[in-house]
Amino acid sequence: MDKVFELQRLKDFTYKIFKKIGCPEEQAVLATDVLLNADLRGIDSHGIARLSGYVRLWEAKRVNANPKVKIVHESPSTAVVDGDGGLGLVVAPQAMEIAIKKASVAGTGWVAVKNSNHFGIAGHHAMMALEHDMIGLSMTNASPLVAPTFSVERLLATNPIAIAIPADKQPPFVADFATTTAANGKLEILQRKNKDAPEGWIQKKDGSASTNPHELKEGGALIPLGSDREHGSHKGFCLGAWVDIFSAVLSGANYGPWVPPFVAFLAPPADPVGEGIGHFFGAMRIDAFRPAQEFKIHMDNWITRFRSAKTVEGEEKLIIPGDPEREMSIERKKSGIPLNPKVVDDLTELAGRFNVEF
Amino acid sequence: MDKVFELQRLKDFTYKIFKKIGCPEEQAVLATDVLLNADLRGIDSHGIARLSGYVRLWEAKRVNANPKVKIVHESPSTAVVDGDGGLGLVVAPQAMEIAIKKASVAGTGWVAVKNSNHFGIAGHHAMMALEHDMIGLSMTNASPLVAPTFSVERLLATNPIAIAIPADKQPPFVADFATTTAANGKLEILQRKNKDAPEGWIQKKDGSASTNPHELKEGGALIPLGSDREHGSHKGFCLGAWVDIFSAVLSGANYGPWVPPFVAFLAPPADPVGEGIGHFFGAMRIDAFRPAQEFKIHMDNWITRFRSAKTVEGEEKLIIPGDPEREMSIERKKSGIPLNPKVVDDLTELAGRFNVEF
Repeated sequence: MDKVFELQRLKDFTYKIFKKIGCPEEQAVLATDVLLNADLRGIDSHGIARLSGYVRLWEAKRVNANPKVKIVHESPSTAVVDGDGGLGLVVAPQAMEIAIKKASVAGTGWVAVKNSNHFGIAGHHAMMALEHDMIGLSMTNASPLVAPTFSVERLLATNPIAIAIPADKQPPFVADFATTTAANGKLEILQRKNKDAPEGWIQKKDGSASTNPHELKEGGALIPLGSDREHGSHKGFCLGAWVDIFSAVLSGANYGPWVPPFVAFLAPPADPVGEGIGHFFGAMRIDAFRPAQEFKIHMDNWITRFRSAKTVEGEEKLIIPGDPEREMSIERKKSGIPLNPKVVDDLTELAGRFNVEF
Repeated sequence: MDKVFELQRLKDFTYKIFKKIGCPEEQAVLATDVLLNADLRGIDSHGIARLSGYVRLWEAKRVNANPKVKIVHESPSTAVVDGDGGLGLVVAPQAMEIAIKKASVAGTGWVAVKNSNHFGIAGHHAMMALEHDMIGLSMTNASPLVAPTFSVERLLATNPIAIAIPADKQPPFVADFATTTAANGKLEILQRKNKDAPEGWIQKKDGSASTNPHELKEGGALIPLGSDREHGSHKGFCLGAWVDIFSAVLSGANYGPWVPPFVAFLAPPADPVGEGIGHFFGAMRIDAFRPAQEFKIHMDNWITRFRSAKTVEGEEKLIIPGDPEREMSIERKKSGIPLNPKVVDDLTELAGRFNVEF
């Protein structure tokens, strides 16, 4: 049975842990906000469940708890940022701030990041643009779990894309999705419940179809969005490749099979092609295209028309990207965040080790 | 049986038809190049097979054969372009040139286009960036054929995305794909052959599954990439929505179900929300991020590593985005372009009507 915790309690705990590993005050607050936003939005795989993983990376000296994030190359609308080996939870929002600043002058801002680590949920960073009447975009690569069409090797991560677009009276359009058929987090849920996965989510070591959610441990792989060639998995591969190239080849990070693993018990590749993992961020000022208010009224019209479309039997309405996460946020702010017993054990252990109250 | 024609012969014919409908010299040459590039790259549904469709739109006074394309709003890295009701085949490359010019000064250039028409293949425009050592991006909306997840209404087009990324000794990475499970062109091939479509490509009028390739005529719809909710069709919907919003809500074109149809026998919606159809283009100078040569050498490494990955049994190598179209181009430049008998009849009729030799 899941146990439910108040958001603030989890935040206090996370903040204290980040302080203990040496994060400066401001960075500990920032990392906590980003990490817990995943739990709040219902993306449990990317939230506090990963806290001990970040700590283990720090223990393995693969995370710098006090990074000096800096621009190493720039133009009026672009920058490459060196994350100084910091937590992606801290590096990513700083890089997104740079994109927003660039956009405020040049109309748009585009920032590629190298030498970073996992950054939580992509949507958090994209959404930072909204309050500035900008469109936000966020991508990241990560360690390889995905076999491109026809491959038996894992060459890409689930490489997510997030796009946040402001509206007027309607809530913003916020898409945030892995470029695979299913995100790894969904597979983890099936693993815990010992349930089969649908066909088209994973393949065996030899590339044949499988419904075993534990297949990844046996050398299998996740499959790009589309499931198979006939249903467009090569398009999912295009998307994942796009994210990898923008995040890492543009920035000078590791790409494809060279991206270092998130888990500390696996060593990074011995022949890196860049530094750390890579992200890519964009901010576009709406009024660099047309008056912001005019745009937002049309976005309201877009959202309202799509939301009220005639549905298939059994479904009440279309889901506009961002709806489920926003509803979950409201719900969880009110009634708390449920944590899996394994996550609770993990956090209890962490609490003991760092002598922090949980 | 298909009949094979030399590229130059089809180009001469197309050029003469565009001249006959009143395109100025330079625009007729440009429109011909863009249109025939589709045939050359093997995307037959978007090439000369559509010539009579463009002519019928002109006859219906829905295409301006001599548009004055102009910037109506801009910032250092952005512009909104009014296509003046011109052929997308002419408007799109002009807009992409503006994106490239912006990028040469500001690092990146982003152009949203309103008041345009169908622009041929997305890849053509994205690839214009390559010779400038830039990354190119191209999107367009079009008239609705696609039902978002849970919808029985058609609200989006197959809204393609193209991304072209230069390499050094390797050919460029060129992804160009509809954001649906299958492009409409693939369905048209099955219609001609009277063959069933795979499940997950189309749905019936009530939203239930179908394999009948003629389903669209009965009120059915194409399905977003992913095929169904369980396999991520909501992600395909996110992609199609993204293209629609960038192409049309940013520019002031018609979006979603309001986009006017390509076929002249269907009237445009009586309550437009913008002008014409919309496109979106991007150009990013590589050296606004890192030295171009350094980037291109890493792209070579990326492409080589992926191309040589271990494959599933029966497949020789991974397909890098752009490989099939490039190989087709080389082949068709040499041995000509095969045209379906229906297309040949259509062009013969056009030749007679305009008194042009075919």
